[in-house]
Amino acid sequence: MKIDLNCDMGESFGRYTIGNDEAMMPYITSANIACGSHAGDPMVMDRTVALAARYGVGVGAHPSFPDLQGFGRRPLTLSPAEIENYILYQLGALAAFARAHGVPLVHVKAHGALANMAAVDPGLAEAIAKGVARFSKELIVVCLAGSAMIEPTEAVGLRVAREAYADRVYEPDGTLQSRKIPGSVIEEPEKAAAQVVRLVRDGVIVAHTGQEIGVQADTICVHGDTPTAIPIAQTIRKKLEEASVEVKPLGSFL
Amino acid sequence: MKIDLNCDMGESFGRYTIGNDEAMMPYITSANIACGSHAGDPMVMDRTVALAARYGVGVGAHPSFPDLQGFGRRPLTLSPAEIENYILYQLGALAAFARAHGVPLVHVKAHGALANMAAVDPGLAEAIAKGVARFSKELIVVCLAGSAMIEPTEAVGLRVAREAYADRVYEPDGTLQSRKIPGSVIEEPEKAAAQVVRLVRDGVIVAHTGQEIGVQADTICVHGDTPTAIPIAQTIRKKLEEASVEVKPLGSFL
Amino acid sequence: MKIDLNCDMGESFGRYTIGNDEAMMPYITSANIACGSHAGDPMVMDRTVALAARYGVGVGAHPSFPDLQGFGRRPLTLSPAEIENYILYQLGALAAFARAHGVPLVHVKAHGALANMAAVDPGLAEAIAKGVARFSKELIVVCLAGSAMIEPTEAVGLRVAREAYADRVYEPDGTLQSRKIPGSVIEEPEKAAAQVVRLVRDGVIVAHTGQEIGVQADTICVHGDTPTAIPIAQTIRKKLEEASVEVKPLGSFL
Amino acid sequence: MKIDLNCDMGESFGRYTIGNDEAMMPYITSANIACGSHAGDPMVMDRTVALAARYGVGVGAHPSFPDLQGFGRRPLTLSPAEIENYILYQLGALAAFARAHGVPLVHVKAHGALANMAAVDPGLAEAIAKGVARFSKELIVVCLAGSAMIEPTEAVGLRVAREAYADRVYEPDGTLQSRKIPGSVIEEPEKAAAQVVRLVRDGVIVAHTGQEIGVQADTICVHGDTPTAIPIAQTIRKKLEEASVEVKPLGSFL
Repeated sequence: MKIDLNCDMGESFGRYTIGNDEAMMPYITSANIACGSHAGDPMVMDRTVALAARYGVGVGAHPSFPDLQGFGRRPLTLSPAEIENYILYQLGALAAFARAHGVPLVHVKAHGALANMAAVDPGLAEAIAKGVARFSKELIVVCLAGSAMIEPTEAVGLRVAREAYADRVYEPDGTLQSRKIPGSVIEEPEKAAAQVVRLVRDGVIVAHTGQEIGVQADTICVHGDTPTAIPIAQTIRKKLEEASVEVKPLGSFL
Repeated sequence: MKIDLNCDMGESFGRYTIGNDEAMMPYITSANIACGSHAGDPMVMDRTVALAARYGVGVGAHPSFPDLQGFGRRPLTLSPAEIENYILYQLGALAAFARAHGVPLVHVKAHGALANMAAVDPGLAEAIAKGVARFSKELIVVCLAGSAMIEPTEAVGLRVAREAYADRVYEPDGTLQSRKIPGSVIEEPEKAAAQVVRLVRDGVIVAHTGQEIGVQADTICVHGDTPTAIPIAQTIRKKLEEASVEVKPLGSFL
Repeated sequence: MKIDLNCDMGESFGRYTIGNDEAMMPYITSANIACGSHAGDPMVMDRTVALAARYGVGVGAHPSFPDLQGFGRRPLTLSPAEIENYILYQLGALAAFARAHGVPLVHVKAHGALANMAAVDPGLAEAIAKGVARFSKELIVVCLAGSAMIEPTEAVGLRVAREAYADRVYEPDGTLQSRKIPGSVIEEPEKAAAQVVRLVRDGVIVAHTGQEIGVQADTICVHGDTPTAIPIAQTIRKKLEEASVEVKPLGSFL
Repeated sequence: MKIDLNCDMGESFGRYTIGNDEAMMPYITSANIACGSHAGDPMVMDRTVALAARYGVGVGAHPSFPDLQGFGRRPLTLSPAEIENYILYQLGALAAFARAHGVPLVHVKAHGALANMAAVDPGLAEAIAKGVARFSKELIVVCLAGSAMIEPTEAVGLRVAREAYADRVYEPDGTLQSRKIPGSVIEEPEKAAAQVVRLVRDGVIVAHTGQEIGVQADTICVHGDTPTAIPIAQTIRKKLEEASVEVKPLGSFL
């Protein structure tokens, strides 16, 4: 049994800070690093890649729509060619910092509205995958487990890492409960860790209705920008190790 | 006798067009391609690298200050670390398109105010060179012939291509006559070509005073955004070939 | 019989030029001036307002989505509060230049994807109208004649100017023929002028099927960025005057 | 005896937060609100003006260089015409929100590198003043007490508010001690308050050498983004009131 723990990182910008990247690094195995489109700038990218390299955390790109003011969370309609080129641009920019720090670029995880839209739009997912493939067919693409993003990504010849959430409540159909519903984000470390351990050991997530859903996951997303982010990550990591689950970077087993 | 002809390219942005890149391609051997900071965007970069690849023109990065509204021509004070990281970011972004089109990134030429300031500020030149070296020590850095940019660039371990101008009038001390002086930009194709042929054959440029200046150049900058750009480039190329000068990309002889 | 002729203006940016604003000024009566979101910058806004003031052309704001790279033509999903505030910001910025040049801000015309979406989405139209009303209830809002934008705009207490196109082919249902269909943009000055004169005199546009459509218009949009823009504007103006139609700014009759 | 207390506000952006504007409002009398250039966006501007209006705090514009990534702190070389137009644009944008909330725009205070440069460059100060005057000659311009910014601002016909600092250590020549020197920023509320009370009562600031400097100030800058910002502001306000100093907005006494 093995699993990767990924976290969005490098989302600060100029004098603005989001998250507590250094404090999260000891608990995760993959960092999805913002590429200057929804967040991040060249200084933040340099610092964040340096941190990941120091902690042995796998470096991935976290590309998004070009929308700093909306933090990449506002749906934007782009042509497939625009998507491909925006992805290529952002991957290249981040890869330069990985190269400068002597570590490989391992994976790609789309951010915000781009990821949400690609999870249900195979054409968009294909455009993202083509952008990634134009950069390198060695990259692993993180896709929401069970989503419509997986098939087009594999069709382009890329490896997929299926992702589940530690701190989100699931609907019986395997989708995430809307953030607008109170309680849809799990804040108690023990509860989040229990969801992860159950998922990794049994391939099961328990929906808010009590129903068990089969979910195959290669990586678990933990958040770095909530008040309880550090204790949640810490507890998940500890409980996984107690359950004899190997926590290791995507690149080492996919 | 051999020389490279370089031209700034890919300076369009979104719906805005500058230059006539495709028409210039047959006459030049190196393209300095904007990286999205003073000009260029992912779609323009993709198109421009594709064009250069098709014409066998060497692909180089043309990084600048982050100032689209000022076209990178307004002096900005940045720390050496900021310079390094901005350079690294832009090189990476452009290199991704080179990779996607199966061609190498060969050279780097700083743009506008960044280049003008680095020509007289060794500390700034060093920061640029360090940013380039962090990406790759194989890259060639284009520096104004005789400028203060050369020494710090070589000290970092990078190859330098010394650059002279086809269409600019020189002062007796080897600097360029200010653009504010009428006639400082040569618009007649024959006159520009004569300056280039004399320079390549004899290592000499004739200043506006009539004085001969010794200039060693590896590459000649031709402009793509003036009304007479195409006939000038065409005439230079023809006259060089008539003078048995080999016109070839920097990467093939430096 | 009277009509206003409006044209999008001030869409240059930094070193980039679009349109030929000065050449169009003699033929139009209202200028929709970009506010720095899809196009325009403070220098361009200053120049364009100065031009309009000099020619006695009515100054209007041409607000858009915040998307310079996409020229405001890419659909973006924003909340009503975001729309209101973006509108307010852009109106205020342009109004400052009008004030500096001693002319009033007369009208507002949404640009690109924002306008296209508002023409069919009353909620979006209402958010735009609320943003305008927060600035001033004296402003006139230009709306596509017959569109869903009119009712919510009037409900907010604003005057509406109904707009028709000189150079676009109409469908029998009163919508514009898609630009993707060859021939959907009228390039012959005489033909465009005939469409306008017929519309103003008889309240009728002839669709490409030959069917007559009733259209009430207060203002006609002419384009400034096509190769035949100037002769089209010139011919429309001339034919209208020959037909004894008064061509005058919106603010003088609405 | 009367004094104004001013504070930079509205410096958040999108999902990024800086400062604790609401907590500061009860202690200050003037808010310098960012206009979307170094910080702030239309949503932040709307919220911040609403807050100031609710607390009866005077609304001012806090214009800056167009440099979000550098938070307006990096020197940029612009022409006087560019300065004028950037100022006009930002004033107009902020004034729209003041108008929407039914409060006047009272003052203008330049931000960061723009302010620092204008304090020693009369030409730059004049360009700023001209931009302000083009918008309205009723606006008050906040200038560092004793600086070269005052004379050109008054020459343009604008009122000046002379500003001193509560939490900065002064040199004997009346300039601020460099932030690079440890201890140059006063963090103890009592000490900052004592500096302010002495200044208002006696027109004197005690330099770090012990020397007394004569300083005439109309407004005191308090910072909102340091850990001790709230207690400092609170203590200053309290000590001023204990010393029978009236703390009131610039617009009420200048």
